[in-house]
This record gives sequence, C-alpha cells and structure tokens, in this order.
Amino acid sequence: MINQKSVQLGSVRSVIRELFEYGKKRKAQIGEENVFDFSLGNPSVPAPAAVQSALKDIISSCDPVELNGYTSAQGDLEVRKAVADYINKNFSVGISADNIYMTCGAAASLCIILNALLNKGDEVITIAPYFPEYRVFTEHAGGKLVPVAGKEGTFQPDIPSIMAAITPATKAVLINSPNNPSGVVYSEEAIKEICKVLQEFKERGQTIYLISDEPYRELVFGGVNVPYIMNYYAESIVCYSFSKSLSLPGERIGYIAVNPAAQNAGEVYAAVCGAGRALGYVCAPSLFQKLIARVIGTTSDVSVYERNRDVLSAALASYGYEVVRPDGAFYLFVKSLEPDSDAFAERAKQHELLIVSAKSFGVEGYVRISYCVSPQMIERSLPAFEALAKSYGIKSA
Amino acid sequence: MINQKSVQLGSVRSVIRELFEYGKKRKAQIGEENVFDFSLGNPSVPAPAAVQSALKDIISSCDPVELNGYTSAQGDLEVRKAVADYINKNFSVGISADNIYMTCGAAASLCIILNALLNKGDEVITIAPYFPEYRVFTEHAGGKLVPVAGKEGTFQPDIPSIMAAITPATKAVLINSPNNPSGVVYSEEAIKEICKVLQEFKERGQTIYLISDEPYRELVFGGVNVPYIMNYYAESIVCYSFSKSLSLPGERIGYIAVNPAAQNAGEVYAAVCGAGRALGYVCAPSLFQKLIARVIGTTSDVSVYERNRDVLSAALASYGYEVVRPDGAFYLFVKSLEPDSDAFAERAKQHELLIVSAKSFGVEGYVRISYCVSPQMIERSLPAFEALAKSYGIKSA
Repeated sequence: MINQKSVQLGSVRSVIRELFEYGKKRKAQIGEENVFDFSLGNPSVPAPAAVQSALKDIISSCDPVELNGYTSAQGDLEVRKAVADYINKNFSVGISADNIYMTCGAAASLCIILNALLNKGDEVITIAPYFPEYRVFTEHAGGKLVPVAGKEGTFQPDIPSIMAAITPATKAVLINSPNNPSGVVYSEEAIKEICKVLQEFKERGQTIYLISDEPYRELVFGGVNVPYIMNYYAESIVCYSFSKSLSLPGERIGYIAVNPAAQNAGEVYAAVCGAGRALGYVCAPSLFQKLIARVIGTTSDVSVYERNRDVLSAALASYGYEVVRPDGAFYLFVKSLEPDSDAFAERAKQHELLIVSAKSFGVEGYVRISYCVSPQMIERSLPAFEALAKSYGIKSA
Repeated sequence: MINQKSVQLGSVRSVIRELFEYGKKRKAQIGEENVFDFSLGNPSVPAPAAVQSALKDIISSCDPVELNGYTSAQGDLEVRKAVADYINKNFSVGISADNIYMTCGAAASLCIILNALLNKGDEVITIAPYFPEYRVFTEHAGGKLVPVAGKEGTFQPDIPSIMAAITPATKAVLINSPNNPSGVVYSEEAIKEICKVLQEFKERGQTIYLISDEPYRELVFGGVNVPYIMNYYAESIVCYSFSKSLSLPGERIGYIAVNPAAQNAGEVYAAVCGAGRALGYVCAPSLFQKLIARVIGTTSDVSVYERNRDVLSAALASYGYEVVRPDGAFYLFVKSLEPDSDAFAERAKQHELLIVSAKSFGVEGYVRISYCVSPQMIERSLPAFEALAKSYGIKSA
C-alpha cells in the first residue's frame, strides 16, 4: 500500500477546481461570453511592464553560469538585502538579510514555517473563513488546524473565540489579511488585541507565534491600512508571495521574514532553513529572485481590481444582496440567499454564474466571488445576479 | 520548543558546504588562482544559447497573464506532452502526459515521490556511495534509509547485499546513475539483476518500487549506455532534473515520470499530486516549464566535462592514485591515500586542494573530486595532486 493520505489529497478535487472544470465545459457548450466564471483567484491583470523588461535585461546581461546557478539555500544575499531594505523602508522593523528566506511562493512559505515550528500534535489557530490548504499544510507538518469563527458579518477576528481556543498545545496563530475568501482587512485594533493575548501567554511562559500570510498586502483599496504584525508582536513571522502583487503566480517566488525582535529569531531562522531543506526546496528560482531585487515595490495595476470591486459590490447591494465590506484582495464575500450555500451556488449555475460556496473555507451561508476578471464580464454578469436575487423573491434596494 | 529536527538540519552545515566556505576564505588570503576548489557540484558550463534565446522569445511573445499564471498543479499539459514525447522517442515506453508531473527540480521530485509512496516506518534501500540528502528526504517522509554497499572498487550495485537488505518494510529501492559522488554508471546487467529481484518480490505479493534519480543522465562519456529503468521493471519511477543537462540548477525545473506499465500507475500518480500539494508545490515555475517544451533534448556542452575527466583521471592515475572508472556525471571518485579519508582531505588542503571526504556519502576510504571547473584550474592543480601523492611516498606509475 502506498501512502493513502497522499492518494486521497491527489484524487479529491477542490470545490473551486471542480467548478472551474464545469465552467470550461459549459463555455464550450454555450460560448465563453455567456458563462460568468468567478471561481478562480488567478490575477487577471498582467505583470507590470517593468517585469518583462527587467527579465530580458537580466537574461541578456548576466553571466548565465551565475544567473542560472544555485543561490544559497536561503536565497541570494543581494536579493535578501533588497527585500530587507524594502521592509525597513515601509515598516521600520530593523530587519536584515539574515532574517529573510526566499521561497517558491506562499504555499512553500507556509509549509516551511509550519515544519520549522511544529512538533507532532501542536495546534495552529486560524480564523474562519480561511484558505482550505491551511489544513493540508498543517496536518502534513504533524499539527492540528484549529479554526475559530470570525465575527459574523464583518469576519474580523473575534478575540474571545481565539482565547478560548488556546491550549497548551497551541504553537501558532495563522492570519490572512487581506483575507481570502472574504476580502476583509483585519483592523489595527483586532491585531493589537490578538497580540496582547499572545504577549500575555508569552509572559506566562508559552510562546505562540503569529504567522501572517499576506500575499494580498498590496491589493487594498481606499487607503485602508494593513498593519505590519512585526510592529505589534515580537514572536511574529511574515509569509509573503509576489504572486498577486506582481501577477506572477506561476513563477513561485516569495519569502519568509522572521521578526528580528523574536526571542529566538536565530533558532527560528535555522529551523526555516532546515525545514526548507527537508521539504526539497533547494533554493527559490534564481532568475525570479534576481527579478525581485530589481522590481520590489512595483505592483501590477491594481486599480482594475478596485473598479471591479466598486461596480460589483454596488450592483449586488442594489439587487438586495448582503455584501461583506470588501477592503482588499480580489474577492467579494456575499451572504447566500438560502441557508445552504452549496444549494445557492448550484442554483447560481442556472444563471451561468460560477461562484464558490464558502463551506470549504469553514463558513456556512456565504459564497465567494473572485472578481479578478475582465470588467466586461462583470458588466455582462449583472443581469444574471439580478435575476438570481429575484428568483428568491428578493427586492432590489 | 520549536521543531528541533528542523533547527538541527538548518544549523549543521554539510561537509561540502563547509569546505566551500573554507575555500572562499582561503582564496581571499592567497589569491583565487592558487586554490584548487573541487568541492561543489555546480555546473561550470553555461546553459546552451538556445535557452537564452528561447527565454527571451517566450517573454516577448506570450501573453503575460497566461505565461506567468498558475499552470495546473501537475504542470502545463503541452509541456507534459513534450516531455512524454521526448521520453517515448528515446526509450519507447509508451508514456503519456498523464504520467508526467513537473517539479521544482530533483530534490522536489524525490521528496514528492517519497511522500507519495511511504507510510511511517517504510524502508528505502539505496546503494553507497549515495547523495547524503537521501537520508533527510526519506526521514522527513516518515521512512528509514537503508544504505547497502556497492561493490568495492567499481561501486556497481551488489545484488546479494540488496537482497539481504530487503525486509517486509521495504517500499522502494532508490538508485542514482550516473552516480553522485562516484561518477559510476550502473551497468545494464546490474539493473537487470536488481529488477529480477524486485520482480520476484512482486510475484510473491510485495511491491517494491524502483526509483531512479537521474539528473546526470546526459552527462556520460564514450558512448556509455544508461539503461532506462522503465524498460526493465514495471513498478518504476524516474525522477529527473534539468539542472545539470541544461545548466539550470538555480531555476528548479524537473519532473517525475511514473511508468505507465505499473500495476497501480494511476494511484501512484494521484499520490504524487497529493504529496506535491501537501509539501506546498503549487506548480513548477511556469516560464521554465514553457522553456522545457521548447528546448527538451538540447544539452549544455558536456564535452568540456569529458575533457576535464580525461585530463584529470589520466594525470591522477599517473601519479599513483587509484581512480574509480568515471563514466559519467562530473565527479571523480578516488581512493584515499590513507585509511581515514577525512584526514586525507584535510592533508590535501596543505596543497590547496579542496576535495570532499566520502564518509558523508556512506563510503570509507575515498574522496570526491568535482571536476565541473575550468580546464585551466585542472591544469594548475596537477602539480599539487602530484605533490600530495609524493608526500605519502607514492611513486608515479
């Protein structure tokens, strides 16, 4: 018998992927323009022009043996310096290249930090709704994911729930803001309260790490502030990916930043290096590491997402939907028009709307609408959303 | 307490890395040209020109949203088709895109297949000398590495030793040919014998997978044949990387190929997909996947390595060293001139020769010399090798 857990993980398609595949078939039947596919979180805006020109320049000007060669396992020193400089310029946390570990994207960052921190049976608290792969990554690292509900309606962290979930086995709290799937940005007040709780546990002798998974950091609208956790709690680690900010999800490039103020920052960093090694991450892709050193701070044109959000959230509200305040990422979280969100998402298909039931994100009664799509598709989809609401007898606002 | 196994893996430098760091310091002291650094297995030949031009062309001509977007987790379908076509053209095994899983290089390939196959406590037999990370990868996947000695002097597989090492817990035999560190290519006869043993166990109800780690496949000299294991045994898996053949070690691109003839090929492939997911490998880097579809079959100019091998092995033999027949890879395996190869490698430093004691490869009394260096350095190093031999009272041949 081979490993049945691996077989099962590789055999069961996620709800999102299932819907996406349905969409492909449906488009072939009735035409691409007649299916409104809001299933995937794949950036629809191209990488900025600076990326293309920097890539070409690097390929032309660098010695290929050096360019395509192994970097050190933790990443090229100049690249890590550039990342540290950028973080310090924006968040003033006194971080150095020795606290940065370049990774193959956010999933790698998370797997590595979880394998670095967790011993068998350790618990990781996360706030629902949450990205379903958190469970897969945590369990593979020998831990147990403990989801606690966010506040109903706002999906901000609920401090009493977090406190109630902490046990002697709690090793980390894992947050994701701007959030996939809710689009919610956790408020500074909520972050401060979480950190106060963790600080109290630390003073009583239990160190609980705060891990921030933040690939959507730059995808925020209307000047909303995304607090940088290192400024609130010493025992903190940022997992970052350039997948969304630079529209490079397929290229697998990101980093782990360990707060230099952590009591055992050096040990955590060593464990990150060790976990990366044990998981087979020899180094992050060399060309894209060097790209990052050149373009860090640049982002794709996120104004497209902002316009999409504005159009879609205003229209849905006018049709009578309850929309969660969408401050960031490229997801709209909308209350299902019937208690069972699976049934609601299924009924939406009758209107050629492909939206994801939020059950797999650990929340009942909501759906996720990924608006990283063309503005034209959003416009075309509006009558379908209106008809769907009407089919439930909902009156426009 | 964070995970101490990860801390330890990230804190202890490998012997090779230690030597490389010593070399950097020594070069600063006495000049780059006076230190003969044979420590690392980093390709010294640039990627072929076709790589640079294909990369530029792909970047210029592809839609960036598609180019840099996620591919499916197992890799872009067109890329997998190109890999399957290449394998079929060369080895006629009837493989399809559905048996190919694109990875972030050889280490990723190995970690994924081990996590796909192993249950806790399963054993993996490998043949010494072997790449030391095999132990790290196997143990992280919950298994136990069981090294068996290759034949003294030739380092070909020793069939009685392999048979003696098989237990009911044996899940796989992991081979590496052309071999790092010995440069030996396993003979077709040896492969046939291993497969015959495994076939017998299969017929008695115990399936033991044969995993071939073969990043050095194209680095063979003098027309030596590297048998393709799928043609000898159904329950076989090839782990490939383009790191050495295309001189792209930093870019992390390779694949796993599951033999379509395996009894449960579909289940193994599903487990590969599941293990990749659990380890955080979302997809292999997209740009380099697309590169592979264009340049597969091209290799770097390996004649440079062949000339290095010829010059170095002939010279060392003439100074009285015993050199293992070097048919491939870019390593020369040489008998230590005293029983303790650590002491020998240490003494070599007095002659500014940086060579790796083979203890960490699971073999006593040998050193590894990585000849992926400039021909000029090889020429300059010869008097030092001669002086080292003379210091032991060895007479030239």
